[in-house]
Amino acid sequence: MSQAHDAVDVIRTKRDGHELSDSQIDWVIDAYTRGTVADEQMAALAMAILLNGMNRREISRWTNAMIASGERMDFSSLSRPTVDKHSTGGVGDKITLPLAPLVAACGAAVPQLSGRGLGHTGGTLDKLESIPGWRAGLSNPEMLKQLEGVGAVVCAAGEGLAPADRKLYALRDVTGTVEAIPLIASSIMSKKIAEGTGALVLDVKVGSGAFMKDPASARELARTMVDLGADAGVKTVALLTNMNTPLGRTAGNALEVRESVEVLAGGGPADVVELTVLLAREMLAAAGFDGVDPADKLRDGSAMDVWRRMIGAQGGDPDAPLPVARERHTVVATADGVVAVMDAYDIGVAAWRLGAGRARKEDPVQAGAGVELHAKPGDEVRAGQPLLTLHTDEPERIERALAALESAVTIAPEGSEPEVTPLVIDRIA
Amino acid sequence: MSQAHDAVDVIRTKRDGHELSDSQIDWVIDAYTRGTVADEQMAALAMAILLNGMNRREISRWTNAMIASGERMDFSSLSRPTVDKHSTGGVGDKITLPLAPLVAACGAAVPQLSGRGLGHTGGTLDKLESIPGWRAGLSNPEMLKQLEGVGAVVCAAGEGLAPADRKLYALRDVTGTVEAIPLIASSIMSKKIAEGTGALVLDVKVGSGAFMKDPASARELARTMVDLGADAGVKTVALLTNMNTPLGRTAGNALEVRESVEVLAGGGPADVVELTVLLAREMLAAAGFDGVDPADKLRDGSAMDVWRRMIGAQGGDPDAPLPVARERHTVVATADGVVAVMDAYDIGVAAWRLGAGRARKEDPVQAGAGVELHAKPGDEVRAGQPLLTLHTDEPERIERALAALESAVTIAPEGSEPEVTPLVIDRIA
Repeated sequence: MSQAHDAVDVIRTKRDGHELSDSQIDWVIDAYTRGTVADEQMAALAMAILLNGMNRREISRWTNAMIASGERMDFSSLSRPTVDKHSTGGVGDKITLPLAPLVAACGAAVPQLSGRGLGHTGGTLDKLESIPGWRAGLSNPEMLKQLEGVGAVVCAAGEGLAPADRKLYALRDVTGTVEAIPLIASSIMSKKIAEGTGALVLDVKVGSGAFMKDPASARELARTMVDLGADAGVKTVALLTNMNTPLGRTAGNALEVRESVEVLAGGGPADVVELTVLLAREMLAAAGFDGVDPADKLRDGSAMDVWRRMIGAQGGDPDAPLPVARERHTVVATADGVVAVMDAYDIGVAAWRLGAGRARKEDPVQAGAGVELHAKPGDEVRAGQPLLTLHTDEPERIERALAALESAVTIAPEGSEPEVTPLVIDRIA
Repeated sequence: MSQAHDAVDVIRTKRDGHELSDSQIDWVIDAYTRGTVADEQMAALAMAILLNGMNRREISRWTNAMIASGERMDFSSLSRPTVDKHSTGGVGDKITLPLAPLVAACGAAVPQLSGRGLGHTGGTLDKLESIPGWRAGLSNPEMLKQLEGVGAVVCAAGEGLAPADRKLYALRDVTGTVEAIPLIASSIMSKKIAEGTGALVLDVKVGSGAFMKDPASARELARTMVDLGADAGVKTVALLTNMNTPLGRTAGNALEVRESVEVLAGGGPADVVELTVLLAREMLAAAGFDGVDPADKLRDGSAMDVWRRMIGAQGGDPDAPLPVARERHTVVATADGVVAVMDAYDIGVAAWRLGAGRARKEDPVQAGAGVELHAKPGDEVRAGQPLLTLHTDEPERIERALAALESAVTIAPEGSEPEVTPLVIDRIA
C-alpha cells in the first residue's frame, strides 16, 4: 500500500533533525504494526522524536497512519450529533460519570470509549465496575443501539481501534519515551478520531497530580491536539484545568461513583458541579446545540434519568448499594489554620496504594478503596479535626498510604488567605 | 554484583541531558548482556546517548563495563612487550599486513585481533583468507605461542571478548545509532583493552572513504579513544590520516595481499610504505623501543621473514599463487590532464559490488575481486590511458560497479596542480 523505506533511513532522518516525509510516516507505522519494523527500531525513532520533535504536518500524518492501522467507527446512522470528552487524567476526576448522561439529556450522543487506570490516576471503567452488574464490554451494534436509545455509553475501546497506538504505547512505557508531546497527542487523538466522534472537548489537566506539571507543556499539548482535531475535521476545543488539588472530595472507585450520583441528584461538591457544567456547555456548543443549559438538566432530574438508563443498559443496577471498604483510617489536622495545599499527586498515590489503582495491567482493583477529603484548600480547620479518611479492604496497606501523605497537606496560619489556582486556567480552540 | 536500577530511569537520565552514574552504567551494561534490559530499551538509550552525549567519566566507565562483560586476555607471560594498531577502516587499507610482521621484526609482539569487512571497506581477515590454507581462528594458547615464537599474529577475535559490545554493535547497526562518538570509541577501545595489548596506535581515517568524513569529528573520536586508553593504562597514540583517496593501488582481497608482499619485499606504492613505516615508528615508541628504524627491517628482508612465518604458522602457504579473478574490465581516461580526484568511497563501493565485500554478515567474498588503480591524484594522464581495472569472477557485477564509479575520477586540465591532502593530517597523544 505504501512506498517501501528502510527503517534505519527513517530513524536517521529524525535523528539528524529533519522532517519525516508523509511516505516515511505511512510506511513506518504500517511496517511497525505488521512487525517488519522491530521494537528496537521504533524505540530509537521514538527517542529521536522525543528529542527532536515533529511539526504539525508530521504529527497529523502520524495520527492518520495510526488510525489507518485499524478500524474506524461510523456513527453517521444516528439521529443525534455525537460529541465526546477526553481528560488527560487526574486524581478524583470522575467528571465523565455525571457529564456523559448530562450531555445526552441535552440531546447529543456521547460515545465515550474509556480505559482502565494505571498509576496514580484512576480509570473510568474501574469506577463504573464498582456498580454491581455493570459491564464495560459492548459490541459495536450494542454501542450504536445504546447511543440511539439512551444517548450515552461509556465502554471499553475495542481491540480494533488504532492497533498501532496500542503497540506503540506499550513500547513507549518501557523505553522512557512516554513524555513526547507529538506522541502523546497522536496517541490520544488517533483513538478519539477512529472512535468516530463528530466533536471533541479535551480536559487537559495541569499540576502536581497531572501528567503535565506546568501550564506551558499543557498548553502545547492542548494546542497540538486541537490542531490535530481540526486537521481531521473533528471540531475540537480544549480546557486547561487545575490538578494541584483532587477534584471533589473523593479519589477511588465506588467513592467516586457515589459522589457522581450526588452531582446528578443536584448536589455534590462545587468544583465537580462547576467543571461538569462547563465541559457540558463546551460539548454542546461544539456539537451545534444552542440555547440548552445543562445546569437545568441537573436540576430537573433528566440527567439522573439518563444515568440510570445508561447503567441499566450495561447490566448495572443503579439502585444496588455500592461496595464499602472493610477498613478505615482517619488523618487529622495537626494545627489550627487554613488548608493551603491538598496535594493531588500525594493523594492519588495514597488511593492507589490503598487498592483503588493497579501497578500492573493484570492486577485487580478494590471497589471500595480510596481517599475521602474532609477539607479543601481555603477551608479553616482546627487541630484534631479529620482531614482525610483512608478506605481499604487490607489494613496492611494503610502504612504505605500514610507514607505517601506525609507532606500532602499544608496548613497555613489562621487568618491567612492561601493562593488557590482557579479551576479553569485557559481555553484553547 | 551491581546495584539494581530501573531501565526506564536510566534512559530518562540520559534523555533529560543528565550524567549517568557509575552504578547506572555498570548495571545497564550487565543487565543488557544478560537480557534483563531489552533491545528496545538499549536502543532508546543509545539514541539518547547519540543526541545528548557522554562525558569522559561516563565513556570510560561504559568501556570498562563492556570489558567486564567478558574475558580479558593476559600477555604478561610474554618476553616481548605487546603493541597493537587499530584502523577505523578505509579503502585499500592493507596496512596491517606489512605492519604487523614489520613491528615484530623490530622486537615487539603484535596481537592483532581483526574483523571481517561489512560495507565498502574490506576486512583484514577477508584479505588474509585469500592466501591458500590460511585460517583466522586460533585458540588463546595457539595465539600466545605464536606471539612468543613469531612475534605477530592476525586472527579473529574470540566470542568471549566484550560480548556486551558484540550485542550492542549489532543493535546499533539496525537502529540508526552507529554514528555516536562515545559508542564508537567505547566499542573499539573495549575490544582493544580486553585484548590485553600494552600499547596501542590508532589510525583514524578521515575523508570520503572513511567513517568520519570531516577532520573535526575524526579528531573528537581520536581524542576520546586516546583518553580511554590513558584511563585504562594502555599507552595510546592516534594519527589522523587521509582517506579521500584509496591507500596504494589496489582495493580487494588477494589484490591487497599482493601489494602488501611487494612492500615487505622493499617495493610497493609510496603511500603504503610511508604509512606502514610511520605507524611502525609510533608503535615501537609506544612500546618503549628506542633506536630501531623499521625502514631497515623492510630493506634487509627481516620483515618479510616474519610475514612468511606468520602466514605459515596459521596454515597458509606464503609461496602459493594468489587467486586471480576470472573477468577484467578496464576504465580509461576520457581526457588529457592531471588526476585531481580518485574518490575512495566510490572505489570502495565498486570493489564491494565486484564481490570483494559483503552486504550481509553471512555472505562469502571473492578472493580475486576488486579494483586496481593505474593512476593517483597528481599523476598526468592521456585520453584512452587505463585508469582502473575492475576484477571479478562474475561479469554481471561489472555494470553496477561502473555505476558507482561514474563520478569517481576527476581529471583537471593539463598543467594544473590539484591540491592533494597530505597523508597524515594530525597526531593526537
